[in-house]
Amino acid sequence: MARIRQFDITPGIMATGKRNAITDVSGVQVGHVTLSSGDVNTGVTAIIPQPGNLFENKLTASVEVINGFGKSAGLVQVAELGSLETPILLTNTFGVGTCSNALIRHAVAQNPTIGRATSTVNPVVCECNDGVLSDIQAMAVSEADALRAIEIAQSDMQEGSVGAGAGMITFGFKGGIGTASRVMTLQGREHVLGALVLSNFGRAGDLVLPDGRRPDPRVPHEDEKGSIIVVLATDLPVDHRQLSRICRRAGAGIARLGAFYGNGSGDIVLGFTSRNRIAHRPAEDVSVVERMSDARIDDAFRAACEATEEAILNAMSTATAVRGRKGATRPLLADWLGARPEK
Amino acid sequence: MARIRQFDITPGIMATGKRNAITDVSGVQVGHVTLSSGDVNTGVTAIIPQPGNLFENKLTASVEVINGFGKSAGLVQVAELGSLETPILLTNTFGVGTCSNALIRHAVAQNPTIGRATSTVNPVVCECNDGVLSDIQAMAVSEADALRAIEIAQSDMQEGSVGAGAGMITFGFKGGIGTASRVMTLQGREHVLGALVLSNFGRAGDLVLPDGRRPDPRVPHEDEKGSIIVVLATDLPVDHRQLSRICRRAGAGIARLGAFYGNGSGDIVLGFTSRNRIAHRPAEDVSVVERMSDARIDDAFRAACEATEEAILNAMSTATAVRGRKGATRPLLADWLGARPEK
Amino acid sequence: MARIRQFDITPGIMATGKRNAITDVSGVQVGHVTLSSGDVNTGVTAIIPQPGNLFENKLTASVEVINGFGKSAGLVQVAELGSLETPILLTNTFGVGTCSNALIRHAVAQNPTIGRATSTVNPVVCECNDGVLSDIQAMAVSEADALRAIEIAQSDMQEGSVGAGAGMITFGFKGGIGTASRVMTLQGREHVLGALVLSNFGRAGDLVLPDGRRPDPRVPHEDEKGSIIVVLATDLPVDHRQLSRICRRAGAGIARLGAFYGNGSGDIVLGFTSRNRIAHRPAEDVSVVERMSDARIDDAFRAACEATEEAILNAMSTATAVRGRKGATRPLLADWLGARPEK
Amino acid sequence: MARIRQFDITPGIMATGKRNAITDVSGVQVGHVTLSSGDVNTGVTAIIPQPGNLFENKLTASVEVINGFGKSAGLVQVAELGSLETPILLTNTFGVGTCSNALIRHAVAQNPTIGRATSTVNPVVCECNDGVLSDIQAMAVSEADALRAIEIAQSDMQEGSVGAGAGMITFGFKGGIGTASRVMTLQGREHVLGALVLSNFGRAGDLVLPDGRRPDPRVPHEDEKGSIIVVLATDLPVDHRQLSRICRRAGAGIARLGAFYGNGSGDIVLGFTSRNRIAHRPAEDVSVVERMSDARIDDAFRAACEATEEAILNAMSTATAVRGRKGATRPLLADWLGARPEK
Repeated sequence: MARIRQFDITPGIMATGKRNAITDVSGVQVGHVTLSSGDVNTGVTAIIPQPGNLFENKLTASVEVINGFGKSAGLVQVAELGSLETPILLTNTFGVGTCSNALIRHAVAQNPTIGRATSTVNPVVCECNDGVLSDIQAMAVSEADALRAIEIAQSDMQEGSVGAGAGMITFGFKGGIGTASRVMTLQGREHVLGALVLSNFGRAGDLVLPDGRRPDPRVPHEDEKGSIIVVLATDLPVDHRQLSRICRRAGAGIARLGAFYGNGSGDIVLGFTSRNRIAHRPAEDVSVVERMSDARIDDAFRAACEATEEAILNAMSTATAVRGRKGATRPLLADWLGARPEK
Repeated sequence: MARIRQFDITPGIMATGKRNAITDVSGVQVGHVTLSSGDVNTGVTAIIPQPGNLFENKLTASVEVINGFGKSAGLVQVAELGSLETPILLTNTFGVGTCSNALIRHAVAQNPTIGRATSTVNPVVCECNDGVLSDIQAMAVSEADALRAIEIAQSDMQEGSVGAGAGMITFGFKGGIGTASRVMTLQGREHVLGALVLSNFGRAGDLVLPDGRRPDPRVPHEDEKGSIIVVLATDLPVDHRQLSRICRRAGAGIARLGAFYGNGSGDIVLGFTSRNRIAHRPAEDVSVVERMSDARIDDAFRAACEATEEAILNAMSTATAVRGRKGATRPLLADWLGARPEK
Repeated sequence: MARIRQFDITPGIMATGKRNAITDVSGVQVGHVTLSSGDVNTGVTAIIPQPGNLFENKLTASVEVINGFGKSAGLVQVAELGSLETPILLTNTFGVGTCSNALIRHAVAQNPTIGRATSTVNPVVCECNDGVLSDIQAMAVSEADALRAIEIAQSDMQEGSVGAGAGMITFGFKGGIGTASRVMTLQGREHVLGALVLSNFGRAGDLVLPDGRRPDPRVPHEDEKGSIIVVLATDLPVDHRQLSRICRRAGAGIARLGAFYGNGSGDIVLGFTSRNRIAHRPAEDVSVVERMSDARIDDAFRAACEATEEAILNAMSTATAVRGRKGATRPLLADWLGARPEK
Repeated sequence: MARIRQFDITPGIMATGKRNAITDVSGVQVGHVTLSSGDVNTGVTAIIPQPGNLFENKLTASVEVINGFGKSAGLVQVAELGSLETPILLTNTFGVGTCSNALIRHAVAQNPTIGRATSTVNPVVCECNDGVLSDIQAMAVSEADALRAIEIAQSDMQEGSVGAGAGMITFGFKGGIGTASRVMTLQGREHVLGALVLSNFGRAGDLVLPDGRRPDPRVPHEDEKGSIIVVLATDLPVDHRQLSRICRRAGAGIARLGAFYGNGSGDIVLGFTSRNRIAHRPAEDVSVVERMSDARIDDAFRAACEATEEAILNAMSTATAVRGRKGATRPLLADWLGARPEK
């Protein structure tokens, strides 16, 4: 369960946050429910973007579709309104409908006027296909699983073959959930940007490590049928346009590892900031928000790129072995790294 | 249950198809399941774009998001891949997850290798909020309802307060499901473009009829919390780019009636053609497709605009009275039209 | 030279600004240089979005491409950075390059460090094709014309067959430059949104007046080869995302008049606000901006729709006769309106 | 003037075309006019996408805006209509207007009915800022230079500090024009995809070679004020949607070298295919086009990524020293590579 830096691999040049995790952004919490039984190896991962009632007090959010071969829910509204009003759930492709229902019930329980005296709610669920290691037709994820992942979320999060990451594969190795963060300074104040990935992409043989090595899992080099979901959290004072641009840079982090956004890979980036909250019932017609200068945004761009790259490597290096559907397995990057001298 | 032309109102100048309906496009079928019980007035409408196994033999499709305040499923993949591989389901906002699950099970039943030996499937579900006339929190739509709507679909379709249209409101009048079509000729061959709308948009007092009259439902002029879903079907030989442009023109049809795409209105257009099908397992690397000339595409643009405008008017004029949640009702456009001399 | 309201036609329901013009937005100025000589009937219209050095103190801006059959300059950067740093020039299609050069020289004259010690500048020029009434191959517009239009801009602006509008045609009638505005209130403070159009679109026979009448210019109903440029100015406290959404609603105003965004019509909307300026060399990393609530944005949407519709009608009703290339002319809407009783 | 493979650096795994250049696509020609005099180090590069009258017989084309901090001309129409009807010119930022004028005159000379009896023409010009090494305020590029670059274009093309590449900088080293290509097979027939870059991006110190080495030019690590233009040419049978997706993958090639699409970098990709031509005056309403299967498109994605990466490295390794404005120079990558053992 070693993170990538423990193998003397250091992606990028920026400093990391304290945990080197998305939960370095104050208030962000992550919970996993893992389902492992017979041919089923799947789960749910919940990202709580901030504590409290998110419907009443929404977050500024953006989405970037790198390759839209994916079935995520809620992205169209995030792109239009620039807001996020539920936790973000990650799961397998066929769990999206059930997780959406769970988020609706969760929001209604907190806000009984939803859909009656006020508007409805936009559940945000992203997904990857874990069909190689899990029987996706089982539609095994329940609303209770989704609600449980939200409930147990905390700032001290797990990585690897957990939650939605249970059945994931990356560059032919076992993949899963990974995270990382970067810090930067604006006007003497420290800010952090964190990434959490559900990593299930990349053709076997294509991986390039930051030091130029190319780990080969020695499995068939099949076409990608995977995907990657990147969730970016920050406390930077950005608006929707800026956040969209930051999200786009996660794609550079994915590409640095050797991927080219394969046809079958649903590569989606979702970003939010804890600043510039949006009231559902604003007390005033006009509110004041903070906006960082674009002249300083390169630090945020670089952070998004580096944190995404490192989160993917962490997902791979911390992944533990899973015996999946019909006995399928994938090698561990940790074994490949451990068996070789670092330099 | 009179259609708008029976009131001597003729939107546009082009000729209609035989039924003046989306089902004038050969192979298109529509089915409704209406749920009416106590505070629940909702349902499901299924549009079968073509008969047969849609997953194996996909349709060329496009999407246009006029205003993304909506919770539809499947649009991101349609935009990226330009293909449709399931029936289209329309329902209320909180029925999307369940209808998505139903479409997955429907596709898996037809194609047992989905998610196992081949890729997953992209369910397409669009929605409007019927919370004024129906208790949306009941989440009353079941997977069985969705499958039933698919099963009973036929080319002879109903309009008005049926299926997903049961609880809809338009410009303060009762809304619902409406349809219309237009024909045009390419190289001596007749083609048809049909629209089906789930009409739930428009502020009371804003409606302008094609003859300039402004029907006022005499209900409070509240902010829009509605939406409109427009489904366009055609047998024109178009590619994804052309179909996207045709979809965009549905917005002109909406605007002609006095709407301005209100903030709270999720206005979504989804289009498909029965030509240029896409094999899931292509026998050849390269296939031949037909593409009409952009020099002739104005006819298709005008058809999309006119058919959308007329479909909305048909949804309103055929809508029957519904006593909804807490006794709420909305006046009927047919009553307003019937009570007034046409000229 | 009568405006449309002088013919007892009132588009929409909102109140207008004092001048019912884009120059109701404090600080906005407009200048025209008209070229009329032999087969040449063209010109330049300059919109000064605010006084002072725009490169040093940019405006928040957005763009909406309704139909991209157009050759405007500078839109890509406006969409990405959400900023405007030059006056906006309108001209004929083949005048864009020369007007761009003029804007570069104008910016460099004010800011000698451009392209040397600081970044370059993004000239914004929009265009319509006046080839029916003017010999566009003459490339008659000079840099001096462009600079002169900027120089003579004032808040008291002209409409009709002036500036870039000299050779324009709309729905088969003579078109040109038109303007209108709408006012709204936020927290007790009045705000204004104004539209200026370069109107050159619409097939003869398609025009529908707000009262339902359909003026026919009795000219051949040819395919559109026109375009419309809409410039929206406001003093509303909006961000880039909100301004983009407001720009999209100009399309509803165009459609209300009977257009469907024809294939050959380059329909472009460019919007800016005088609030939330963007410093080229910000003193601080983080600045404070004001953002109106989306819950109140329907007023701005309606204003964009109504002001665009009325600006087009003003362009038509104020247009004066032009004898163009090879003696071509187009009838005047004012003549059609004047010859008929209003009701 | 050694290409990157002569330094034993091999980007990617696919086979190259015969010339390893964009001109491996049959019919593509490239011409450079270089202006070097005093403080001026700039020029024009013309890419002739196919021989003959491009206005009468347009190409299927697409555009991908990775980062829109750029002033290119013509992109909006390429995105809407999916067609290219002029040669592509590359030049410095302040040469776009003049090059646009040149392309208009070039098209009118070939097609005297443009803007008179038929529509206008959409000149496509892309640019980077060479202001460090050249006096961009001089606006030194003339229409004659642009026409000359078109005239002298040939299939045997030059790389490095030539044409528009004269004053370019990449990762702190001298940049310029570079090219590369990749081949693939569809149904037994060989196809080629070539990239040509105008490379002017990347912060000094960020470059990572495919073998993991990180060349440092030992110049100040300033913010990017550069840009990169990527032109992709192919003979693959693709439609507009597919070509747009292929263009997007050029961004992965840029990122692999260590860039993160900096705020100030206008990163634009323009792609065209020599197949599926589009007649300006189609003889028939419907034409037949060929479309490769998306199931095989990963080869084209990988090719776009690899060819872009290698084209950039070729631009750098072939660049020759330029003494620019106020004596400014940049080190050569060839010197860095030559001074070090390859492994």
